Amino acid sequence: MISFELSNILILVSTGIGLLWAVYNAYKLNRIKIGTPNQYNNFQDDYQDHHSQLLLEIASHIESGAAAFLAAEYRYIGVVIILLALLIFFIVEPVLGQAWTTVAFLVGALTSIISGFIGMRVATFSNYRCAYCAQTKMTDAFAVAYRAGCVMGFALVSFALLSLTILLGIYINWFIKDYRDFQQLFEAIAGYGLGGSVIALFGRVGGGIYTKAADVGADLVGKVENDFKEDSPNNPATIADNVGDNVGDIAGMGADLFGSFAEATCAALVVCSVSPSFYYHPTTFYYPLLVSAAGIIVCFIVSIFAFVGEKESFDQVSNALKFQLILSTLLMLPALYYVAYLTLPERIFGLAPVDRQPIHAWLCTVVGLISGCIIGFVTEYYTSHSYRPVQEVAQACGTGAATNIIYGIALGNLSTIIPVFLLAFTAFISYSLLSMFGVALSALGMLSTLTIGLAIDAYGPVSDNAGGIAEMVGYPQDVRHRTDQLDAAGNCTAAIGKGFAIGSAALVAFSLYGAFITRASNSLNKHPLTDLGVNSPLVFLGLLIGAMIPYWFSAFTLKSVGRAAFEMVEEVRKQLAERPGIRDGREKPDYDRCIAISTKSSLQEMFAPGLLVILVPLALGLFLGPTAVAGLLPGILVSGVCMATSSANSGGAWDNAKKYIEADLCEIDDIIKGKGTDEHKAAVIGDTVGDPLKDTSGPSLNILIKLSAIFSLVFAGVYDKSAWLLCAMTTSSSGCPA
Amino acid sequence: MISFELSNILILVSTGIGLLWAVYNAYKLNRIKIGTPNQYNNFQDDYQDHHSQLLLEIASHIESGAAAFLAAEYRYIGVVIILLALLIFFIVEPVLGQAWTTVAFLVGALTSIISGFIGMRVATFSNYRCAYCAQTKMTDAFAVAYRAGCVMGFALVSFALLSLTILLGIYINWFIKDYRDFQQLFEAIAGYGLGGSVIALFGRVGGGIYTKAADVGADLVGKVENDFKEDSPNNPATIADNVGDNVGDIAGMGADLFGSFAEATCAALVVCSVSPSFYYHPTTFYYPLLVSAAGIIVCFIVSIFAFVGEKESFDQVSNALKFQLILSTLLMLPALYYVAYLTLPERIFGLAPVDRQPIHAWLCTVVGLISGCIIGFVTEYYTSHSYRPVQEVAQACGTGAATNIIYGIALGNLSTIIPVFLLAFTAFISYSLLSMFGVALSALGMLSTLTIGLAIDAYGPVSDNAGGIAEMVGYPQDVRHRTDQLDAAGNCTAAIGKGFAIGSAALVAFSLYGAFITRASNSLNKHPLTDLGVNSPLVFLGLLIGAMIPYWFSAFTLKSVGRAAFEMVEEVRKQLAERPGIRDGREKPDYDRCIAISTKSSLQEMFAPGLLVILVPLALGLFLGPTAVAGLLPGILVSGVCMATSSANSGGAWDNAKKYIEADLCEIDDIIKGKGTDEHKAAVIGDTVGDPLKDTSGPSLNILIKLSAIFSLVFAGVYDKSAWLLCAMTTSSSGCPA
Repeated sequence: MISFELSNILILVSTGIGLLWAVYNAYKLNRIKIGTPNQYNNFQDDYQDHHSQLLLEIASHIESGAAAFLAAEYRYIGVVIILLALLIFFIVEPVLGQAWTTVAFLVGALTSIISGFIGMRVATFSNYRCAYCAQTKMTDAFAVAYRAGCVMGFALVSFALLSLTILLGIYINWFIKDYRDFQQLFEAIAGYGLGGSVIALFGRVGGGIYTKAADVGADLVGKVENDFKEDSPNNPATIADNVGDNVGDIAGMGADLFGSFAEATCAALVVCSVSPSFYYHPTTFYYPLLVSAAGIIVCFIVSIFAFVGEKESFDQVSNALKFQLILSTLLMLPALYYVAYLTLPERIFGLAPVDRQPIHAWLCTVVGLISGCIIGFVTEYYTSHSYRPVQEVAQACGTGAATNIIYGIALGNLSTIIPVFLLAFTAFISYSLLSMFGVALSALGMLSTLTIGLAIDAYGPVSDNAGGIAEMVGYPQDVRHRTDQLDAAGNCTAAIGKGFAIGSAALVAFSLYGAFITRASNSLNKHPLTDLGVNSPLVFLGLLIGAMIPYWFSAFTLKSVGRAAFEMVEEVRKQLAERPGIRDGREKPDYDRCIAISTKSSLQEMFAPGLLVILVPLALGLFLGPTAVAGLLPGILVSGVCMATSSANSGGAWDNAKKYIEADLCEIDDIIKGKGTDEHKAAVIGDTVGDPLKDTSGPSLNILIKLSAIFSLVFAGVYDKSAWLLCAMTTSSSGCPA
Repeated sequence: MISFELSNILILVSTGIGLLWAVYNAYKLNRIKIGTPNQYNNFQDDYQDHHSQLLLEIASHIESGAAAFLAAEYRYIGVVIILLALLIFFIVEPVLGQAWTTVAFLVGALTSIISGFIGMRVATFSNYRCAYCAQTKMTDAFAVAYRAGCVMGFALVSFALLSLTILLGIYINWFIKDYRDFQQLFEAIAGYGLGGSVIALFGRVGGGIYTKAADVGADLVGKVENDFKEDSPNNPATIADNVGDNVGDIAGMGADLFGSFAEATCAALVVCSVSPSFYYHPTTFYYPLLVSAAGIIVCFIVSIFAFVGEKESFDQVSNALKFQLILSTLLMLPALYYVAYLTLPERIFGLAPVDRQPIHAWLCTVVGLISGCIIGFVTEYYTSHSYRPVQEVAQACGTGAATNIIYGIALGNLSTIIPVFLLAFTAFISYSLLSMFGVALSALGMLSTLTIGLAIDAYGPVSDNAGGIAEMVGYPQDVRHRTDQLDAAGNCTAAIGKGFAIGSAALVAFSLYGAFITRASNSLNKHPLTDLGVNSPLVFLGLLIGAMIPYWFSAFTLKSVGRAAFEMVEEVRKQLAERPGIRDGREKPDYDRCIAISTKSSLQEMFAPGLLVILVPLALGLFLGPTAVAGLLPGILVSGVCMATSSANSGGAWDNAKKYIEADLCEIDDIIKGKGTDEHKAAVIGDTVGDPLKDTSGPSLNILIKLSAIFSLVFAGVYDKSAWLLCAMTTSSSGCPA
């Protein structure tokens, strides 16, 4: 057993290592100077001067576009955060004037904002450096992109863990007079998770709309109407499209996974606060934190291997990335074992029906870790064109776009089977071992390799952007070829990351749900949960409505992308009509107006889905009380997980079926069907349908699942006090306002 | 309070009226002689002779095609029914050698088979008569199609009610020695529902695959490759396509709704058998039967009005059909009130936490009736091109097929909101009033106007087929125009019928679930259900897996349609290649081979989805016991209802968006976009995507939802005795095999 002090020191050391490693990688990136002759180039000066100047110019457009988006987003976020903070302060805080939950909420939101900012900065700082280095060696370009990923991954996780630990330390010193105060304290800490999750809503939903509005808009008006090439600098929407990759995949994915991490930790804390063994060994609550701390150390060691060896081919890059994932998973196994025995008491009472030992906690984290890894690879199987499923979708293009789409939908549906079975059994096994605490642990176990996961996820858009920039600068074809290889390798691992994000969201939401039930069952409540049976009418009502919410939510986000893309099309048409010189490069297009439109419409369009996530649980809780919410949350969860998986994988499959055809790999009736054939046109339609599914509505469902749960956890006390309709219907006045 | 004898007499009278009315309508149809001069035609003899001969020839092709399908289907059904009967006989029957459940199962299956046979016969008997009468007056053609619907509707419902009543009567006389035997008796009667449901699986899934394989196959090879017109007699797949309409919409829809009726009645019986008021007033169990009996009488009165007045325009036909629906709903209100007070004791004990009166039973039926009606009209709003949603989808064709599909998916998702809220509150209110008995009553209330619903549903394919036949015979354009109007009016009400089928399936499944819980909670069980909490691990596992099953099931059915359509394409290509004369009508195509292919592949392709429906609950029950199934069923239910609604409405919307464009109603940028434009091509792609969604995978989900529930109800005792994995995991040996 470990002491308070030693736990704190261990966490500080690991976050210190994480932050230093992030700073070191940022320093290495900063060493790459554009234009001055150095190890990365020995071209003639004239050529280099011209291209370097162009490179810096385009980079500054993307940088300022990203900054403009962030500035606009922060204004909206500011207003929402202040409103929610007031709501929490006046409604949720148990004693008027106290601000424990409110402060935790603000700290969580701020941490997520800062992490997102760092991610965006480092991405826009690295993408043109990646293109620059791709002039000579792929190994160097890979190192740039992966270093950028490491900065993002290590900074985010270390910073998140650090701020949560400091917050906990301060609260414990100020708040705790008695061990029983812990329960209330951890309920307040749930505000931290809510803060992170609200920012994730902006990142995933707003970011998702931004990136696809720019992408679809640029494609519709650029490729279809004007025959521009992909990433042509003459297309006014090009820069917005490139900014969008950062907004969606860096800020969005980062905020999503930050939310998962914060929420899983909060859920573990709330659940374990009711256990008697926690009263006797209060350092137990460091266990969830130390799981993440161990993850940082392991990922640090693993990430060093990324920079070893040559990466001059697609296979080398792809293998290096997969090696990162597999090695971190393998090394986590003993690390988690050690953490469990270091932190937990020999016997864990009260968290499960029978007495348990640290090994059971370890098993929970391991089940989560391994099933996360398998889900990732299953996702790859269903979305990579190296395997049968995507090839079948590509073949279906032979009979037109309609069969392509039908097969893609069927593929998405099929791809839910294994992940859902894995999640169901992960939840079942970890619950059987350690009840809801076990479920929270399995989520934390799945997220323990988060740092590497984030690094790989951020790597993708950086190398993707580098390709776009290389195109715009007019670098020779071999440069673009190198970045394309990097990007393709990133696409495979991005699919793994997406599967992982959905899987962890499901486990996190289930453990938050457990925390909600723990809180709402408190016998001191006015309406304590008594009958949670699936066959009880309020639970079933919640369940049925919950299952429908993902449909409602997706409809909103899908239509939002459509509307925002249409505004983009209008703007580009206007620019091309007013200044015809743009078309052939004689005039510079107004990139900033396109960026402004994407920014504005994405932030406006997220209003409705955002309200939906918050208002439905709130309305159900206020009118029908906590029991209806206890049905709503699992309804959203089970339906949302299936829909998110299916949407993401259908979209991914259509994308890669198109790439399969473009790579001249698709043979129908012994004829190779490549670019420009009818089959290719059918595949492009599928890809366009899939774009908002895989990058907007699908990933946004992760947020829906988690945010509705954490929101209900924080507002559980409020639901308990209202339940207005229920009070009006039942004659019994117990627990109802007079 | 009513006596046993009077209840029996009332049921006999109403089913007698229903059957007589069906026979009378069949007689009226039979009076229409083709070719002989009569009131329906006064054309010249030469013309009439030629066309009448052609008409009879085509009609005989469709008739023999339908008969061939039925014959093949009955062979498969025979094998499956015998296997299941053996399974039930040896595993489910409480005492070896007893056959109560087995006999009920066989009677249910046989009743459904006979009803389906009557429906198919009358449809293929009427469709060419409808075309024939459309030569002169639309009113006459309407009467033919609606009489066919009445034969189908009244025969099916009366026959079903009669066979169930006779079965009950016999069982009560032979079986009952003590009032406590009723519980076991009604559990045996659930076999009747299972029998009906298994036939519905063949009707909906096999029929759905048949109709869309023929339709998509005929379109792909006919319209796309060979430029045949719709319903061209030179297309070898044309007759199969026309047969498919009957197989899918008549036999499929009929079997589906027969299943709902049988299952809702069985659920009501099983649930009410545990009520003490039932012991004191055993005639109470006639109440669910008398609800349906009252429905027959009301629908008989209403259907007479259908034949009053001129129907010479689309509006007149459409209004007449809607009037049928609304009038039957309105007249049911007092009828249901009267039935409740006639049958139920003044005080109903034991079905709800507090003492209830007949008025509460009436309210349950009314809530179901009205919400069914609203769900129908909401479905029409989302799928008719008279309203904004479909018009928006048509407009989205302006930017291509991809936006059309994205908007269609979003529309389908949005269309789930109101139905789900209605179903959730119907279940909640009726449960609050009379517990699970109330839910069963709300399902019966929704189904009380079933006779009219079925008549309208059968009307659609008859008039649709009449149009196809008129085209093939070469009748003048005004004949086709008349049948098109009839068909269009039928399409609106068909949408209502589809919404209604899904809604009733949801309520039926929930009440079956209630019956399952009632049965599985029996304290005499080895594993009685104790913790049904949504947060209990086994329930959550079941819930999550259940939510995924509709995805798995749809993937199967979607791919089945693809494969079966492809086989059809191959056959047509072969015929056209081998005998080129077919193309211009010099040679007769071999229609029968196409029919044989559709038949064979549809029956083979339903093997996998059929097994899935039965094996998943069975496997979960055998390994993890009844608690896991108690999570699985609501998971399938809530996810399946949303997906079924969304699939059906997306498909309907794409279909009608295409028709909107074809009717020159779609204006984009002030230009009318009609047939042949790029917008039309985009709309055709959407329509083809929607075909299997709306006619195969969507409606098949109704069967999935209900069949998994009734199957579990019948097998509840078996799950209870096994629970192998659970037994292996827990050390306690209670209830586990030694």
